[in-house]
Amino acid sequence: MTDAERRRAVARLLVIRASGHAEDGQRRYPRWELCNRELERLLGSGVGGVILLGGTATELQQRCRTLRHWSTDGDLLLCADVEEGIGQRFEGATWLAPPMTLGRLHRSNPDHALHLAERYGRTTAAQARRCGLNWVLAPVCDVNSNPENPVINVRAWGDQAQAVADLVDAFHRGLNAAGVLGCAKHFPGHGDTDQDSHLELPLISHARSRIEQLELVPFRRLIASGVASVMTAHLLIPALDPSQPATLSRSVLTDLLRTELGFSGLVVTDALVMEAISRSLGPSEAAVQAFAAGADLILMPADADQAIDGICAALAQGRIPESRLSESLQRRAQALQRCDEAAGSETELDLVTPADDEFSMELVSSSLEIQGPLLAAHPEQDAVNLIRVDGVLPCAFLRSDASAITKPERHGYRALICHDKGIEPWAMNRDTAEPLELERLGKGPVFLQLFLRGNPFRAGQQRHEPWDRAIQQLLRVERLSGLAVYGCPYRWDSLRRLVPDHIPAGYCPGQMPEAQKQLLDRMLGMNWDEQARKDFTD
Amino acid sequence: MTDAERRRAVARLLVIRASGHAEDGQRRYPRWELCNRELERLLGSGVGGVILLGGTATELQQRCRTLRHWSTDGDLLLCADVEEGIGQRFEGATWLAPPMTLGRLHRSNPDHALHLAERYGRTTAAQARRCGLNWVLAPVCDVNSNPENPVINVRAWGDQAQAVADLVDAFHRGLNAAGVLGCAKHFPGHGDTDQDSHLELPLISHARSRIEQLELVPFRRLIASGVASVMTAHLLIPALDPSQPATLSRSVLTDLLRTELGFSGLVVTDALVMEAISRSLGPSEAAVQAFAAGADLILMPADADQAIDGICAALAQGRIPESRLSESLQRRAQALQRCDEAAGSETELDLVTPADDEFSMELVSSSLEIQGPLLAAHPEQDAVNLIRVDGVLPCAFLRSDASAITKPERHGYRALICHDKGIEPWAMNRDTAEPLELERLGKGPVFLQLFLRGNPFRAGQQRHEPWDRAIQQLLRVERLSGLAVYGCPYRWDSLRRLVPDHIPAGYCPGQMPEAQKQLLDRMLGMNWDEQARKDFTD
Repeated sequence: MTDAERRRAVARLLVIRASGHAEDGQRRYPRWELCNRELERLLGSGVGGVILLGGTATELQQRCRTLRHWSTDGDLLLCADVEEGIGQRFEGATWLAPPMTLGRLHRSNPDHALHLAERYGRTTAAQARRCGLNWVLAPVCDVNSNPENPVINVRAWGDQAQAVADLVDAFHRGLNAAGVLGCAKHFPGHGDTDQDSHLELPLISHARSRIEQLELVPFRRLIASGVASVMTAHLLIPALDPSQPATLSRSVLTDLLRTELGFSGLVVTDALVMEAISRSLGPSEAAVQAFAAGADLILMPADADQAIDGICAALAQGRIPESRLSESLQRRAQALQRCDEAAGSETELDLVTPADDEFSMELVSSSLEIQGPLLAAHPEQDAVNLIRVDGVLPCAFLRSDASAITKPERHGYRALICHDKGIEPWAMNRDTAEPLELERLGKGPVFLQLFLRGNPFRAGQQRHEPWDRAIQQLLRVERLSGLAVYGCPYRWDSLRRLVPDHIPAGYCPGQMPEAQKQLLDRMLGMNWDEQARKDFTD
Repeated sequence: MTDAERRRAVARLLVIRASGHAEDGQRRYPRWELCNRELERLLGSGVGGVILLGGTATELQQRCRTLRHWSTDGDLLLCADVEEGIGQRFEGATWLAPPMTLGRLHRSNPDHALHLAERYGRTTAAQARRCGLNWVLAPVCDVNSNPENPVINVRAWGDQAQAVADLVDAFHRGLNAAGVLGCAKHFPGHGDTDQDSHLELPLISHARSRIEQLELVPFRRLIASGVASVMTAHLLIPALDPSQPATLSRSVLTDLLRTELGFSGLVVTDALVMEAISRSLGPSEAAVQAFAAGADLILMPADADQAIDGICAALAQGRIPESRLSESLQRRAQALQRCDEAAGSETELDLVTPADDEFSMELVSSSLEIQGPLLAAHPEQDAVNLIRVDGVLPCAFLRSDASAITKPERHGYRALICHDKGIEPWAMNRDTAEPLELERLGKGPVFLQLFLRGNPFRAGQQRHEPWDRAIQQLLRVERLSGLAVYGCPYRWDSLRRLVPDHIPAGYCPGQMPEAQKQLLDRMLGMNWDEQARKDFTD
């Protein structure tokens, strides 16, 4: 193999990041998303994978065609982080309630939950194919055993190892049936951390035996079912490797995953640009160590050329045996063989089918939790609909026509939105029993809608917001007219207990428009006929 | 002509509204934007025009292909309200500083302003064609003689009749050169109103002689230059017609526009769903009266089928002579003949050219107004970057990576965003000399960034915000560190006078990302080399 051939071969193992938009000016994260000129150059030089984020489903279809056109070697891996349906990342496709929805349903109705989990996989895979993707970076196999988990949370299929194993297996069957590759992540398990690996390197201090009994259970199951790929976690787990994070650990990736668990598919790193890795290692060394430890594919290296150069040098120096390169290339080729050749050939008009919409609705309706009476209308009073979100620049699920705004408005509630860059509703000293600056919220009843879930990069934000005491304060002054929580079930479970029986409260694990619509239709007591008429005449 | 033939012929004269997005679920305004099933049915039944709004430029390309596919008669008019470049409405295309930019430049450098106006038309038309549009609903020919105008304002090419005539003529030459139809609007002139015709029917009480000397000047010029279409205004102008708004007035559309001014092209109504018309007339009667008055094309009827039925009945009853139908169809066919057959055939990759980007930058840089020293950095203090926008759900020019947020942040200013659904910065009683609730804004210096321009549907909002007194208040407590105004030149002219020489203040008529970037680079004193390095390392 010549140097040029080796460079081209190593490039096949990279998965670089691109915006789903066509124009460079549309990129949201130019720091991470390569410009078109660079993408074209790298794909032309052999790079074999792209992870896409941003844009609409229609743009994604066009984008995948363009990327395939730029790739001289043809068989491109095109993936996205679409754990909650393609619509989670690409507007216009179907956005599903998060996996935790089925984790909760599984407690009371496991058969139905498993049935829905398989449809979840099938729906996601079918739309992925119609957009041009052949690899879905799901399911999350982490058991969310820590309610304070800031980064997994509702992305997990539950907090019980066996149930999670059953659900991810059903999801994976659905993916498989539609001919799209899956990815079990984040190995060996990211469910028990209260730190965000986007920002720091979390430590898991459990003994090996506990990891065996809990964290590994869903991974073992998917490996047995032939999952195409496993994604590594940026976690330090001394019981498995006292010095290296899992992503860079030979003990974890080769000894445990390959040898003990017998996984023969593709091992892909989590994004190497994440702080947990990039803080201590340069772009070349991070890629070299991950590859040396046993990873086949290098996801989002901080610098693609340096990653390729580094791995080539390590191979040339004998630091990594040449056989590792041929093995990884062979695994990659085998995975691609599993993808149906038809991927991406469908037209855009069929992107979302009526069955997809129905499934999305069914998932939401199976997950609603409601207590208390209907929300009272207050057309004559200064009633406030206080909506809490992480941010609004933009907020994918909260646009001016969102149900969370328009439905309470018809009942007399004026929307007031709290977000990270707005003027706060909190008093100068929020650590008191009266944390809300009530005068800022008018004089009327307050309907509180909290969009709370663990979001990457937002780790600290929610901890400083005393919504529990705010609810108690509103109750004391008799101004709480209702509570809706969208997202984290643990927050809902603790906040719902504060709300007395005569005040309505509701919950949905999903935050997307369909979740708002159904939860509020139930809480406002609008029946479907009325609703249809209203939508028509408005 | 059989009834079916006549129905199909009348349908050619309708311009119905569609979202630029592919999927029904993506529509922002389902009340006005027809669903795909309805669009396909109406285009199949002969409807001859579509006005598009929303989505990205890539989606628009795909959308125009789909609509042409649905249209059984082929020669579809596809238009959009892209007065400020295609990027104003379709993300990813070029978003230009508004026409008023050149109205201001024209005072000091008329030749350069006219040169830029022609490029403005050429750039807009070329991108329109690459997206698949063949009709641009511009230029605005209204002379913005009223600084309080809530709906025209910076959309106008100035406030002097002769300068506006010269500029719109140059713009129109540019459009023409690129083979796209233009539209002179809003006839006979919408520049002198302080009401919003989206919400009510404004009254223009000027004498005929003044309208002749001011309002009609730019329209006469474009008619002489052969503009393809003229759009009617929803205005009551007793000097021209004491009982009917211009859109429905035979005196205005036939006697004045056709006979006196000799216009032989297409007369198109403004949107008939607007409150100024729809409040008093049903969907059928509004269309019938507009057609009877002399309009050729019916834009956004509240109900397409009723509009067609109504016009067919009026023709059958002899209320409107059959010759009007054949004349309008003939004008429509002549206009379409002028469009180059090549429209829409370009590929998506060339949508935005480097020349387009350069033009957009040049337009902004020609429009900046700066006074005072550089903005001071405050890395150690509790400095606030107070940003005022209409709304954030979403705000097309203010995303988390917007220069208005990130550039002051590097200088120590934390962004705090005021918008229509946020908690207000105002004191309980804002009618005092201390309108701001200063405690909500921390203790440090305040950099005020005001995005103010006349926006449809927002008429009243800005009038209740006493930014003049807020600036005086911040000056008194020595907390104003700078002022930036984006948008309305009249607001800038009045606010700049309040700011003393030692405090930096700057203005750009544009609000889009490029405007923020250039204005803040100038106000923060970052030179281009530094900037390039920063962008690279960040």
